[in-house]
Amino acid sequence: MSNKVSIFEQKIHEAVKKVSSNESPTTLFEPIGYILSLGGKRLRPLLTLMAADLFEKEPDTVIDAAVAMEVFHNFTLMHDDLMDRADVRRGNPAVHKKWSDSVAVLSGDAMLIEAYRQLENIPAEKLPKVLRLFSDMAIDVCRGQQYDMDFEQRTDVTEAEYLKMIRLKTSVLLASSLQIGAVLSDAPAADVKLLYEYGINIGFAFQLKDDLLDVYGNPETFGKKLGGDILCNKKTYLLIKALENANKQQLQQLEMWLSKTDFDPNEKIKAVTAIYDELDLKTISENRIEQYYIASLECLSAVDVPNERKEELIALSKSLMYREK
Amino acid sequence: MSNKVSIFEQKIHEAVKKVSSNESPTTLFEPIGYILSLGGKRLRPLLTLMAADLFEKEPDTVIDAAVAMEVFHNFTLMHDDLMDRADVRRGNPAVHKKWSDSVAVLSGDAMLIEAYRQLENIPAEKLPKVLRLFSDMAIDVCRGQQYDMDFEQRTDVTEAEYLKMIRLKTSVLLASSLQIGAVLSDAPAADVKLLYEYGINIGFAFQLKDDLLDVYGNPETFGKKLGGDILCNKKTYLLIKALENANKQQLQQLEMWLSKTDFDPNEKIKAVTAIYDELDLKTISENRIEQYYIASLECLSAVDVPNERKEELIALSKSLMYREK
Repeated sequence: MSNKVSIFEQKIHEAVKKVSSNESPTTLFEPIGYILSLGGKRLRPLLTLMAADLFEKEPDTVIDAAVAMEVFHNFTLMHDDLMDRADVRRGNPAVHKKWSDSVAVLSGDAMLIEAYRQLENIPAEKLPKVLRLFSDMAIDVCRGQQYDMDFEQRTDVTEAEYLKMIRLKTSVLLASSLQIGAVLSDAPAADVKLLYEYGINIGFAFQLKDDLLDVYGNPETFGKKLGGDILCNKKTYLLIKALENANKQQLQQLEMWLSKTDFDPNEKIKAVTAIYDELDLKTISENRIEQYYIASLECLSAVDVPNERKEELIALSKSLMYREK
Repeated sequence: MSNKVSIFEQKIHEAVKKVSSNESPTTLFEPIGYILSLGGKRLRPLLTLMAADLFEKEPDTVIDAAVAMEVFHNFTLMHDDLMDRADVRRGNPAVHKKWSDSVAVLSGDAMLIEAYRQLENIPAEKLPKVLRLFSDMAIDVCRGQQYDMDFEQRTDVTEAEYLKMIRLKTSVLLASSLQIGAVLSDAPAADVKLLYEYGINIGFAFQLKDDLLDVYGNPETFGKKLGGDILCNKKTYLLIKALENANKQQLQQLEMWLSKTDFDPNEKIKAVTAIYDELDLKTISENRIEQYYIASLECLSAVDVPNERKEELIALSKSLMYREK
């Protein structure tokens, strides 16, 4: 990791720590500090600072907006975990488990407001635009989560629908993190657009890689047990492609496993993975990820700044692409 | 009702109807249109328009902010109903009953974002201030709801704590509706402050009147069954004063009724009301409401505009004070 990136990460770490979490009542604010303290890659604020750096702007120019992105991201985790009944977050109890459902609802609400509060000190002449971009992003992310929940009830989700969903749920926040960083750095409109598209493509690659690792990750480096998505019938890229490409017998098998409520976990993972293998979904998926990766690099290479300024973003894309967890 | 007020109400009605509710996915946006269509007094946007009118500004100057207040208010209703497991809203099923808990969480989130979106077209030179006031208000309302929920677990809530809670949960939004209307109308800082305090006092009177009507309302005009707060042990002004003023025997009786899980509803209402009667809480409560009413009128009378411009606000305060439902 370059020296520049570790300076950025330190800046973000310090700024995130300052997000209000010791006001009263503690039942409202403690969970905000808690979820932010669980860490994570801080990928979104890092993208905002890197976008500013492209245009030779100091991190301080965009640090508030960067923190807004991280706070917003963690707000979505708090509410998504509640809605998805996902009880563990980064190896720790999710907020609704550690406190209660109501605490998760209300602390999440306060966290969304805190995200907006981070935008208060943005220069007045840029605030209207940034506020609009932020709210557009926020609504898109809600739409993505709703599609994701709607898909749980369906077995006929198409690849196009799935890609639309992850664009909204995952890509848009990465893209906006770059976009808002660029807008605050007086980047030309064409470059803002290219960075947004770069973020969209990185988001697709990122999510598809996530889906892939759950099945084909290296058990020794993956960090959690493989096959979690298979066990809970999560509509991943692999499952959607499998349902699309399966022959009659494979489809019967898949549907049997999707509807079975009483099963041996290892047996289910093994059986579904076998079908994925037969359909060569690992290769199909890897090719798709490669496509998005190449598309992202094309966007980035068209941004009108000297190549040496793009090194950190290129290294970041690569690390997301070739990650093992 | 004056002609001016009905023009204001019509403006609000039309503007609220335009709040996005037919985007996709419908599972996300329909509940927003639904809860907004259930009506209500539209008190908060009316206060914003009336504040503007004090300073001779047209409704269009503040209509976006007024709608933001109403959308925010309805967002809090959607999430509060979920957290309080209150299944009926204005005679109709609450969103979490009509759809699901998850829909109430996520549509509420989208609604909070929609509230912020209403602020996007505020003149750039006023936006930083209005955004800050709006977020301060929003966090205060969350704090109020959290205190309210925390109080459910306690029987030692003091009058001061209760008043702090309703200040945050109810008064602040009314006060901010006036404040933001005044700020957008270029009102002098002193008048903005007076209108905020006017709103705080009106809020106290409004909530204490609510608590009073639940027990001492006229059954024929109240619209719903009396005693609902008593049945669910809601910490109202009456209950808190009763716990504070009761003698040993009355306290024993009250605590018995608060802890009883199997009871005849009418018997419980009758018994608790009898204690309230003995403690003369109707008069105590009415006097307190009168105090807040007078304090509110004092604030309003100090606002530096001709008295005839205050007529609508005075009439509105009076109608809230002497309402029977």
